[in-house]
Amino acid sequence: MPMKHTTEDLAAARATSTFDVSKMTDIVHGPRRAKTLRFLTDLAKNDHILRKDDRPYLGRTERFYRSMQIQKRYIELRNQYGFDVEELMYFRWIYDEYAFTDLHELMFLPTLRAQASAEQLAKWMPEAENFKWIGCYAQTELGHGSNVKELETRAVLDLQTDEWVLDTPTITSSKFWIGALGRMATHAILMAQLVIKGQSFGIHPFLLPLRSLKDHTVLPGITIMDIGPKIGANSQDNGFMQLKGVRIPRENMLMRYSRVTREGAYIKPPHDRLSYGTMTYVRVTLVDQSFFYLSRAVTIATRYTAVRRQNRDQSISGMDGGEVTVMDYGMVQHRLFPLIVLSYAFAFTRDRMTAMYHQMIKQINDGDMSMLAQVHAESSGLKSYCTLVAAEGIEEARRVCGGHGYSQASGIPGFYGTFLASNTYEGENYLLTQQTTKYLIRQLRSFQSKKTGDLSPDTAYLQRATSADFGSEKIQSTKKADLASRSVQAHALEHRAARLVLEVADMDAVSGRRWTDLNVAMARAARAHSQLFVWRALAEKVDSVKRSGPEELVSILSEMRDIYFLWILTGADAGDFLEDGYAQGAQARDLLAEKLKNMRKNAVALVDAFDWDDYVLDSALGRYDGKVYEALIEFAKKEPLNKQPVVFGYQEIVRPLLDGQCGTYKPKSRL
Amino acid sequence: MPMKHTTEDLAAARATSTFDVSKMTDIVHGPRRAKTLRFLTDLAKNDHILRKDDRPYLGRTERFYRSMQIQKRYIELRNQYGFDVEELMYFRWIYDEYAFTDLHELMFLPTLRAQASAEQLAKWMPEAENFKWIGCYAQTELGHGSNVKELETRAVLDLQTDEWVLDTPTITSSKFWIGALGRMATHAILMAQLVIKGQSFGIHPFLLPLRSLKDHTVLPGITIMDIGPKIGANSQDNGFMQLKGVRIPRENMLMRYSRVTREGAYIKPPHDRLSYGTMTYVRVTLVDQSFFYLSRAVTIATRYTAVRRQNRDQSISGMDGGEVTVMDYGMVQHRLFPLIVLSYAFAFTRDRMTAMYHQMIKQINDGDMSMLAQVHAESSGLKSYCTLVAAEGIEEARRVCGGHGYSQASGIPGFYGTFLASNTYEGENYLLTQQTTKYLIRQLRSFQSKKTGDLSPDTAYLQRATSADFGSEKIQSTKKADLASRSVQAHALEHRAARLVLEVADMDAVSGRRWTDLNVAMARAARAHSQLFVWRALAEKVDSVKRSGPEELVSILSEMRDIYFLWILTGADAGDFLEDGYAQGAQARDLLAEKLKNMRKNAVALVDAFDWDDYVLDSALGRYDGKVYEALIEFAKKEPLNKQPVVFGYQEIVRPLLDGQCGTYKPKSRL
Repeated sequence: MPMKHTTEDLAAARATSTFDVSKMTDIVHGPRRAKTLRFLTDLAKNDHILRKDDRPYLGRTERFYRSMQIQKRYIELRNQYGFDVEELMYFRWIYDEYAFTDLHELMFLPTLRAQASAEQLAKWMPEAENFKWIGCYAQTELGHGSNVKELETRAVLDLQTDEWVLDTPTITSSKFWIGALGRMATHAILMAQLVIKGQSFGIHPFLLPLRSLKDHTVLPGITIMDIGPKIGANSQDNGFMQLKGVRIPRENMLMRYSRVTREGAYIKPPHDRLSYGTMTYVRVTLVDQSFFYLSRAVTIATRYTAVRRQNRDQSISGMDGGEVTVMDYGMVQHRLFPLIVLSYAFAFTRDRMTAMYHQMIKQINDGDMSMLAQVHAESSGLKSYCTLVAAEGIEEARRVCGGHGYSQASGIPGFYGTFLASNTYEGENYLLTQQTTKYLIRQLRSFQSKKTGDLSPDTAYLQRATSADFGSEKIQSTKKADLASRSVQAHALEHRAARLVLEVADMDAVSGRRWTDLNVAMARAARAHSQLFVWRALAEKVDSVKRSGPEELVSILSEMRDIYFLWILTGADAGDFLEDGYAQGAQARDLLAEKLKNMRKNAVALVDAFDWDDYVLDSALGRYDGKVYEALIEFAKKEPLNKQPVVFGYQEIVRPLLDGQCGTYKPKSRL
Repeated sequence: MPMKHTTEDLAAARATSTFDVSKMTDIVHGPRRAKTLRFLTDLAKNDHILRKDDRPYLGRTERFYRSMQIQKRYIELRNQYGFDVEELMYFRWIYDEYAFTDLHELMFLPTLRAQASAEQLAKWMPEAENFKWIGCYAQTELGHGSNVKELETRAVLDLQTDEWVLDTPTITSSKFWIGALGRMATHAILMAQLVIKGQSFGIHPFLLPLRSLKDHTVLPGITIMDIGPKIGANSQDNGFMQLKGVRIPRENMLMRYSRVTREGAYIKPPHDRLSYGTMTYVRVTLVDQSFFYLSRAVTIATRYTAVRRQNRDQSISGMDGGEVTVMDYGMVQHRLFPLIVLSYAFAFTRDRMTAMYHQMIKQINDGDMSMLAQVHAESSGLKSYCTLVAAEGIEEARRVCGGHGYSQASGIPGFYGTFLASNTYEGENYLLTQQTTKYLIRQLRSFQSKKTGDLSPDTAYLQRATSADFGSEKIQSTKKADLASRSVQAHALEHRAARLVLEVADMDAVSGRRWTDLNVAMARAARAHSQLFVWRALAEKVDSVKRSGPEELVSILSEMRDIYFLWILTGADAGDFLEDGYAQGAQARDLLAEKLKNMRKNAVALVDAFDWDDYVLDSALGRYDGKVYEALIEFAKKEPLNKQPVVFGYQEIVRPLLDGQCGTYKPKSRL
């Protein structure tokens, strides 16, 4: 039977859409960012050095060298165009080859900016900002990851010479995983225990020169290696480092907050927490990155399922004949469409979290520190939830592509491996959730003790949990339609989150319960709270589009809000809601299936609205024109294994086999 | 503070165990298989060619060539020792480098054995069994995966020359993904539409020579390429193939069942389904493979969490001081220990499914086909459930290792990528579940129409769903202890599975519901049924050890049965049980946490009992002696990037940067 061409299928899937794609692009990115992304994409895709098509075939050493060329080009373009910090970040995501520039821009420079004194900045920044230094951030140790306080690397003040003496005294104190350290960095921010006259003052940052600026050899007393291959990010040189009596001037301690004088006096910072600013900012960008990579995977899977046709066995009654696209399977809609919704939700969550972050910065500049705890807690919870769910969603999108998703030609494996690391860095996901729940418990306790709490709309719902009838107050919506009501949804999500926080607070109050026994319940509570935050971001976006348009998008966005809610209500967390009295699983599943089916007509247009160029997607399956099978063959043609007419190793391996020189086979019984 | 050495931690974790490890080894593998595995492991680990430590650093071409050496060695040892089919499979899993021999042994030979006539076997097997031919199995096409009926490759009989004329007439009919085809195979089993005088007789197997036995060049009319890099299995040459008027003799059709005469008459097989035997057998081995790879990942993670220490922030009340191993975190127990249980459960599931398979073969040899449908349905459901949950479990075990899990030194990424493919091949997991549920619906309907059904103990529970009061019959266990009762557990799992099958059967009966709308509900029902099968395998193992010992293992195994049940009851499927009236989530979570905590003392011993040698694990984190940090450094030392004193590319990339030749940076506003 002749197949309809895939390009026609994709065109047909676009023709059914009910809204203007460019208007949605402006909603999801904001008009200004949408323009920026397009500008940066055009720049990258027309640059030969930044091309992507040759990368999947390279071994690690070749890939690392290719990546060095890419980073150099990035620096040239950065200097030529004078990108701002946000543009730099998006540009790196667009050309998508993780390497030393990422660490330099995301960790090294921001730490200097935040923690170096004015004098130090004046001296260091001209070198650092122009990549005359290549910087890295050396915190993690072989035996110490998330627990910064226990780092063993020591910086001991030598009062005589006015120097720090740096040592990694044990095997577990070796620095490990440090990005850009392995082969590239000339300088590190070294996190080490500060010791003066035998007294330890805790972990502080130091500027440590690593390699000669003359010939790039490693400086005396320092041992460095690349740590070897990883799941992804192999264009990055994560490093191992041991220090043996390495000396740096006293002034190499970053002295904006804590300081140490020539006499060895330690001077405390005015406010402890200020130094955590960099981490908070990085966590906010990880929510954005979750959106970026998830929406990219989802675009690929959505376009591909719209062109992939598969007739199925008709032996079960009720099935009609006719070829169907895979996108018409209820199961595919069930697996894939919520991920489209999630992508939008994460974009709006990024906006909401960023606004909160900027509000805090504004207040801090006015001397008001009151938002620090909240922003720390919310960004920790969201970093954990968004990177975890995005990683799962990317992998699910890949699987929805069936067998071809397993090929690197699908474009998803290439960045999944790299994105996966985000579940661990900047705070291991499960441990971060503990920060969020601790904050929520404190909020709850201040409501309980009749104080007002922080009055933030994001935690005000906890107040309800302090009322006497909270436990018995079971809310059931009786009609299916109620499940699509904004207030019912808000109530369900708030009630459940409040109950889970209350439960863990009660457990915590029982004496003898160890913290290690509580962390499952704490993670549950944090997850519920973050899901509420994400739902709010979606719901508030619906409200704002209702107020100020475009009107044609209101119903589509509010369908997405409903789907996000129903997806949570019926998914892996369903038990929470059923325990809460929201006991209509079958109704909710039915309504979700209806809404997903109704989304079919707009699915391709919704991913088109992300406006990811074929260069950004870098996928045979996600091509805008739908020519997936042609692209898979093109991908195969470039495989180096195909270069020789007869396989390499023919004489030594294949010939002896075919000539029967490897013996004959006869099964024997031995045992 | 000086750290206790990791070797001491691991020894301490072993000292708390309450049972004899070697007795458990015999339970999990069976005494005979345990001996076989040990014998094969010793053989592999002492063979220089089969060593694993150099593999992670190789690029694809080098790795492919290494793999060819490994395969040749495998063939020599196979012939020397005369391994039986099971030994061959385990040996391949142990040296663990997926390549052409896997396809040859698992697909090519079994298909010949099952589908070639006696005459063909006599002619072909001496070549095929001794690898004088290298075989592959060419079924999947670029546009056709799981839906075999729609394959487009054609074999048209030329009556004049008595030959089949083979063509791939469209781009979508190109063979794709065919393992060993890309560069190695000399012969394929080609699955193609059989056409005589314009009439199509459906898909049949043909023996197709691919490459010259003289010089290994591809034969005329055939185009072959390797399809390029994948997530894993890059030591395998998956192939693309187009055929243009390729001619093979009529006798190259595999004629054990269907036959075609010299005159072009098509003769049907006596029983259609017999030809599916190979697929069923392969699915059973995939349950075994799920056990093998999951237990391997779990061994690594368990040993590592027993030696990894991390003090945590003590600001939450109730936390004691003192350094704790990560294994003492409730969250780690919650994530990891159920995976130990799952590994055991899959081993017993393999035994139970294998016994069922052999029973069927015995009956078929006696002319009784009655078990075919059941074995097809059970093996489909279990293949789907076990490979999916094992893949998730492997990834979770990797994440439990924290940051170091992301390094290839952890040993998990190396096989995860390859194992992942099992979710798609031999029947895409979601599609396979439809086979299971269709069978269950048929069983239910025969109960409903007062026929007896197949009386198999595995589906007899469906009969209950036909009673009038099934819907209203809500079973609540009132005491926490009830949740650890075998009969309560059986009842909960059976009631839920029966309800889900009944629901989907009812939906199916509603006219106008399309099959595509039912497949979510069908997958849910199949999953519930397969979970019941796995629980039964565990529960029956407890029963048999109760009867015949060793007695000391009874309580440990029955704890595992309880944990498996509670893990399902409180996990992602909790909603199902709550809807069923099993409404004690908090009680079940508490009991699970208690039982997991109690399992701490035996955790390391339980993974020791899998008896996986360090060679099998191939992991810095999973070493039997606990020297994880030393091993991570050894791994780094072998990284080729570390070979040069100064990074490759220093002159072209680093020097210009440090010299400031790439411009200076000044942010500009553009938009």
